[in-house]
Amino acid sequence: MAGFRSNRSFARTNNDTGFGNNSTIHGDRFVLPDGTFNIRRKGKRPWEWFSLYHTMLNIPAWQFILVVLMFFFSINLLFTLVYLAIGFHEFTGYIPTDTWGRTKELFYFSLETYTTVGYGRVNPTGDLASLVAGVEAMSGFLSFAWATGMLYGRFVRPRANLRFSKTAVIAPFKNITGLMFRFVTLKEKHTLTNVHVKVNLAMKAPDAEGGQYQFYTLVLERSHVDNLPMNFTVVHPIDEQSPLYGMQPADFAAADVELFVLVNAFDDVYSATVQQRTSYVYEELQHGVKFVPMYQESADGSTTILEMDLLDVTR
Amino acid sequence: MAGFRSNRSFARTNNDTGFGNNSTIHGDRFVLPDGTFNIRRKGKRPWEWFSLYHTMLNIPAWQFILVVLMFFFSINLLFTLVYLAIGFHEFTGYIPTDTWGRTKELFYFSLETYTTVGYGRVNPTGDLASLVAGVEAMSGFLSFAWATGMLYGRFVRPRANLRFSKTAVIAPFKNITGLMFRFVTLKEKHTLTNVHVKVNLAMKAPDAEGGQYQFYTLVLERSHVDNLPMNFTVVHPIDEQSPLYGMQPADFAAADVELFVLVNAFDDVYSATVQQRTSYVYEELQHGVKFVPMYQESADGSTTILEMDLLDVTR
Amino acid sequence: MAGFRSNRSFARTNNDTGFGNNSTIHGDRFVLPDGTFNIRRKGKRPWEWFSLYHTMLNIPAWQFILVVLMFFFSINLLFTLVYLAIGFHEFTGYIPTDTWGRTKELFYFSLETYTTVGYGRVNPTGDLASLVAGVEAMSGFLSFAWATGMLYGRFVRPRANLRFSKTAVIAPFKNITGLMFRFVTLKEKHTLTNVHVKVNLAMKAPDAEGGQYQFYTLVLERSHVDNLPMNFTVVHPIDEQSPLYGMQPADFAAADVELFVLVNAFDDVYSATVQQRTSYVYEELQHGVKFVPMYQESADGSTTILEMDLLDVTR
Amino acid sequence: MAGFRSNRSFARTNNDTGFGNNSTIHGDRFVLPDGTFNIRRKGKRPWEWFSLYHTMLNIPAWQFILVVLMFFFSINLLFTLVYLAIGFHEFTGYIPTDTWGRTKELFYFSLETYTTVGYGRVNPTGDLASLVAGVEAMSGFLSFAWATGMLYGRFVRPRANLRFSKTAVIAPFKNITGLMFRFVTLKEKHTLTNVHVKVNLAMKAPDAEGGQYQFYTLVLERSHVDNLPMNFTVVHPIDEQSPLYGMQPADFAAADVELFVLVNAFDDVYSATVQQRTSYVYEELQHGVKFVPMYQESADGSTTILEMDLLDVTR
Repeated sequence: MAGFRSNRSFARTNNDTGFGNNSTIHGDRFVLPDGTFNIRRKGKRPWEWFSLYHTMLNIPAWQFILVVLMFFFSINLLFTLVYLAIGFHEFTGYIPTDTWGRTKELFYFSLETYTTVGYGRVNPTGDLASLVAGVEAMSGFLSFAWATGMLYGRFVRPRANLRFSKTAVIAPFKNITGLMFRFVTLKEKHTLTNVHVKVNLAMKAPDAEGGQYQFYTLVLERSHVDNLPMNFTVVHPIDEQSPLYGMQPADFAAADVELFVLVNAFDDVYSATVQQRTSYVYEELQHGVKFVPMYQESADGSTTILEMDLLDVTR
Repeated sequence: MAGFRSNRSFARTNNDTGFGNNSTIHGDRFVLPDGTFNIRRKGKRPWEWFSLYHTMLNIPAWQFILVVLMFFFSINLLFTLVYLAIGFHEFTGYIPTDTWGRTKELFYFSLETYTTVGYGRVNPTGDLASLVAGVEAMSGFLSFAWATGMLYGRFVRPRANLRFSKTAVIAPFKNITGLMFRFVTLKEKHTLTNVHVKVNLAMKAPDAEGGQYQFYTLVLERSHVDNLPMNFTVVHPIDEQSPLYGMQPADFAAADVELFVLVNAFDDVYSATVQQRTSYVYEELQHGVKFVPMYQESADGSTTILEMDLLDVTR
Repeated sequence: MAGFRSNRSFARTNNDTGFGNNSTIHGDRFVLPDGTFNIRRKGKRPWEWFSLYHTMLNIPAWQFILVVLMFFFSINLLFTLVYLAIGFHEFTGYIPTDTWGRTKELFYFSLETYTTVGYGRVNPTGDLASLVAGVEAMSGFLSFAWATGMLYGRFVRPRANLRFSKTAVIAPFKNITGLMFRFVTLKEKHTLTNVHVKVNLAMKAPDAEGGQYQFYTLVLERSHVDNLPMNFTVVHPIDEQSPLYGMQPADFAAADVELFVLVNAFDDVYSATVQQRTSYVYEELQHGVKFVPMYQESADGSTTILEMDLLDVTR
Repeated sequence: MAGFRSNRSFARTNNDTGFGNNSTIHGDRFVLPDGTFNIRRKGKRPWEWFSLYHTMLNIPAWQFILVVLMFFFSINLLFTLVYLAIGFHEFTGYIPTDTWGRTKELFYFSLETYTTVGYGRVNPTGDLASLVAGVEAMSGFLSFAWATGMLYGRFVRPRANLRFSKTAVIAPFKNITGLMFRFVTLKEKHTLTNVHVKVNLAMKAPDAEGGQYQFYTLVLERSHVDNLPMNFTVVHPIDEQSPLYGMQPADFAAADVELFVLVNAFDDVYSATVQQRTSYVYEELQHGVKFVPMYQESADGSTTILEMDLLDVTR
């Protein structure tokens, strides 16, 4: 393992990654594969750092729907309780004559009011009931306004929509070897231009006490493309300048190697700059294999075919 | 054709276009005239790269309206089926007495509920019917929220709104010739400032095996203007440094010449950076003609007239 | 007038303003005081360059309200005509018994439906009427979605919200004179940072045939401030390097001087880059006066007072 | 106090802060801790610089709700007055028979109409009443569109969401001392990258007449990080180049020291550049203490724990 240390001084270290460099106070990988930081907040005021909006953007679809439905029924239940407190006599148009039946009618009345449907069979006749119904309709309207923002955030906000290969490979490159991974724009009709890639490397110095991490910005064969119509294979040539020079597969594990990838591009559809991050730890590196080509001319020669299923395929 | 090769080494090649350079794996033109990439995705999971939102932004208006109407009727049909499953007895207010008539009434009830109109003649009396109607009203509200995002995307999102001349011309320029095209902001009241133009050229090296493409960034007489009140004629002087130097009209076809144009500007109305792309292939080049001037002083001298119909006119 | 010509060669000319430099084909001032370009489009397809959205953003408030109301009544009239074509018999709940009364009822029904209020007294019983009402409710919903985008554009979109002094002045500055104007952020709670100012000058060369314009970028004493809490006085020192050096008041008119001002800043509230432009022609220059200070400490010393009414005051 | 003056000339002064430098015309601190400028507008046309939108974004939540409710009831009261002017006879469906009871019914009718609920028990039969109800429904719809923009602005718009330490400290740093403060991203799931920090210093020159302020941009140990997963401690080393070199605690008060902090970052969730400002005046500086570490490895070693309660803790 000592073989790769002598060249370390050539490498461009990066002390501005923002990650702590002491493994005894930093747990496991720095960045998760989905690009979020591996960090958890703790303290006495969790409501301060809880953001309903950011949470709603990140939960899976079924949880999102569940939360929306639960919120919808809870707030209607609340208004129903207020209507019950006001009393049945401030409403007209019931069909049932028993208390439980009328209670349900008030709940359905609340549903109609909150959604501003207002069929009007059951309708308020008393003063308090009428006022509260007005407030409910208004709050329904406003909460759907809020939901609009949420749906926008989940489905429509600018995003890079990149898919990265599941592994990075170390493969022959020109006369040496290179560290490579690739990515592709996932969505059709979604155009990225002016794409920049930055790759940082974290690794433990083999003889450092307490496992200090060193950070390097890797030199790339190409770190920018004008357009991203197809896949982009990012290559870091492992030459004598590279901090990875001379490292054997076992050395990657010993050094607890982690690559941080940051892709930055201009999204033509949203007219916004978008970013996506990922990371590869040493278990996600494959040695001695190459990626297979992903694209080819179509049969009729009129267009180019991008084979999405080949993104992760190596040979 | 050999005449233009000797100067090729002077030209600034650009290997960062992001386009593949091998014509045997790349079909036809790289960029379509509307600025999208000439590429098609293939694979086993098309739903992954299908984006309803991006698709809805790009289809023609009549398809957009059709999809909206079809979606609207489909979801109402679905809810009608649920109401039918619940049963006619959970609703009141029908006028028809036969099954088909009442079925239609439930469909119209669904329409009223989904749009939150709620006339209320037909209205739910049973528990299940009332609950489902509440859910339908809520989902109607939310889907209109989604439609808001879509309409925003189609009509209001920041866009460059440029119109490019249909052809580029090769015309006398100073003592040499120049490759020229022009563009204009199409929309009134839409102001672009800080406009940058980048033109890349793809052409096959005449003696390359298998037809390798070379990419060049063309030097422009002017690649930036502070404001874009009128048309902007982009000129690439074909001097000895140009990769096009010495090429005859037939050479353009033989070299499969394609120009990629990228215009980048600040949109004053949206306070956003916007981009528009186009491309010209050799069939879209005109040799030996010039563009006619597009603007002139108004009769009363108080303003400048931009003659939009002259954009493509050459002489 | 010849006095100021000899130094012209020192000035930094700017050929990238994007404005034509020939006064015989360019009418009057280049930029209007509100920052729009003094240009008009002409051609056979005005619908192509008409943008309802951009127009609605720029018309005065009373016109905006008028257009909204007219649109609202027109579309309801249209749907009323459709309902009339379907026939009175497909609706129920009328109070009047005569044709004109029922026609009006259908118009009011249309109003209720389009706004999704749906009182439901008059309501559709026939198939066609029910379907058209569903489509009307949907289109009402969608057009309000569109209106949301419009209102957002008029009232909420990122804007610099600057107010410029009505005139620029030429006043003593250090040992020479300076051309000065100033501006201030108009709105409270609206914070601009990282403010850049660029001033271009257009003037006719005094002896040019046909009145060719020359464009210069003026050197400013300070073209950037980190924050814009108060007013910012922009100063162009008229030293020997200035294209205005040695010019007398009459020379400004003869040279048809026009200043183009572009302010670019980061808007803290919207997290967006915003821009505002204006221009000063020679009639809007005042010679030999100075701006009075606009701000002072408050009586209790706890804050600073910005006197908005002094923006244009000179002495 | 004279001890620190001799080195002042080494420091990089910044005359582009945008703040006035004369203490007799500038009241108290320049920037408030929440990052807003300490300034007040005065003049004859306050409506010009009042922005309802910006105000609604900045008031506390309870005031926001109060304003919304007050607006809602006021506009409904207004429409009720119009309906009263039209007359009771243009409506049908009342339950009460007395004037006051019917007046209240019209108010509730207005509530239903404005929110587009439209129960329809009370409904317009006359021409004027029907038309005004249509206008009310439309204006209700549009004002909720406006409210959507407002709610978006308050809850969803891009923001840095940083929390700064309440105090800055002057603590030993390497062999000298350093001025330090720190900040952290407050919200979970909110990712900032490419973070830049700029710190300006305002202080009175000790012997200046009338208390002129000098502005300096402080040199920082690190002014940029690629990512902000955890806290960022900003350090200005007080070496011989620093304008603070040799100053004793009492000197900070005498010089009326104020630090302006500007943090600028890319917000990954919104794909926008965001900013946050704060300031520290001399009372908010602590001498001779250090910040305690805020993060540590989790018990199971799988993640890193950020202890939010320790942000302000020094020892």
